[in-house]
Amino acid sequence: MILLILSCLLAGCLAQKPHPCSSPPLLTGALSISTQKENLWIYGKYLYDALGERVRVMELGTYENKSFTYDALMLYREGTVYEIYKHNRTCNKKPLKRDFHPMEIPKDASLLGQVILGSSSGPGQGLLVNTWTGDMPDKAGKFLSTVTEFGCIPVTSMVHTDLFGWMMINYFDNVIGILEPGLLNPPDFCLDAEMKANKEEPENFFSLLLNKH
Amino acid sequence: MILLILSCLLAGCLAQKPHPCSSPPLLTGALSISTQKENLWIYGKYLYDALGERVRVMELGTYENKSFTYDALMLYREGTVYEIYKHNRTCNKKPLKRDFHPMEIPKDASLLGQVILGSSSGPGQGLLVNTWTGDMPDKAGKFLSTVTEFGCIPVTSMVHTDLFGWMMINYFDNVIGILEPGLLNPPDFCLDAEMKANKEEPENFFSLLLNKH
Repeated sequence: MILLILSCLLAGCLAQKPHPCSSPPLLTGALSISTQKENLWIYGKYLYDALGERVRVMELGTYENKSFTYDALMLYREGTVYEIYKHNRTCNKKPLKRDFHPMEIPKDASLLGQVILGSSSGPGQGLLVNTWTGDMPDKAGKFLSTVTEFGCIPVTSMVHTDLFGWMMINYFDNVIGILEPGLLNPPDFCLDAEMKANKEEPENFFSLLLNKH
Repeated sequence: MILLILSCLLAGCLAQKPHPCSSPPLLTGALSISTQKENLWIYGKYLYDALGERVRVMELGTYENKSFTYDALMLYREGTVYEIYKHNRTCNKKPLKRDFHPMEIPKDASLLGQVILGSSSGPGQGLLVNTWTGDMPDKAGKFLSTVTEFGCIPVTSMVHTDLFGWMMINYFDNVIGILEPGLLNPPDFCLDAEMKANKEEPENFFSLLLNKH
């Protein structure tokens, strides 16, 4: 009986044409980043709050064979990013570009295909996903994104940048909701940090990724 | 109720330690191959019969920006590979190295981790997978393989080769069983093909991949 319902769930959707979608507004999960040039590896945890336009990432990584840790809280609505150094309870406070991009497949993206990862032959063996391609918001290059058909949960994103070649972000262990809401507020020891603008441009997600080394 | 059972299925297994596993002996599905050096792209369909030690691949691809098609039936037990050209109903028959490697995670592989692709927050939104690493059978390099926890269905394999750098094989739309058993027998027009051994070494899976251009 359950098998039958499962099969119907899986088979029923195959008849539906996939549409661009938005991911749930609250997500907690993990990600890994690897690059074609093999100069950057990252394993990290993230919290994503599209309602408050806040993102926290806590990363372990290696860049050019040197390891690093990185912990940042991006508050897009306030135009502020806190780089957090827990070990000595200090913070860098920097201006952040305010254009928050929710996790979504843009309306003008093209469907590359709908496939099942794993198998549809048994329960728990497969995952129906859609892969989309299109131009990055700033026309800086192409993206290739895979999300689940049910729930629009991110699975893989690939973007092309000059410094890294293709950069692949794998998302996993995602849950809908915010696991620790406190992590989306600046820690106490950050409150008296002064805004430092060392550059003319405010930071964005990629400049933070590139400049932290 | 179904949600509860689903959650138990997913959560129950999290308590179990993953073990190296063998994929089902009969599989039909699709695969894509891409390489770090971006010189090879392949989309293909495959049939896999570990009982009869037979594999059929039918591929479309580009190598160094030239497109090609490739259709091969590997009969490991007979030590024969048929390269099939349907358009003019001809075949190449070549010797094949007899060491058939079933799709499996070797007993001495190391578990990198168990993760959920997508999300465990709703039914149909997630897939529990295990990622393993180890040495290739011939110690020619490392592999990194991801298979589903339930069913040991292949999801992704990465292997390192000198010519391509990292080569990534993505498997998808897999079903347990053989969809068209006839495709695992040589076509009529192949039966009178003569064995050609142009080289000293019999072919293997990788030499076929490398030499067909």
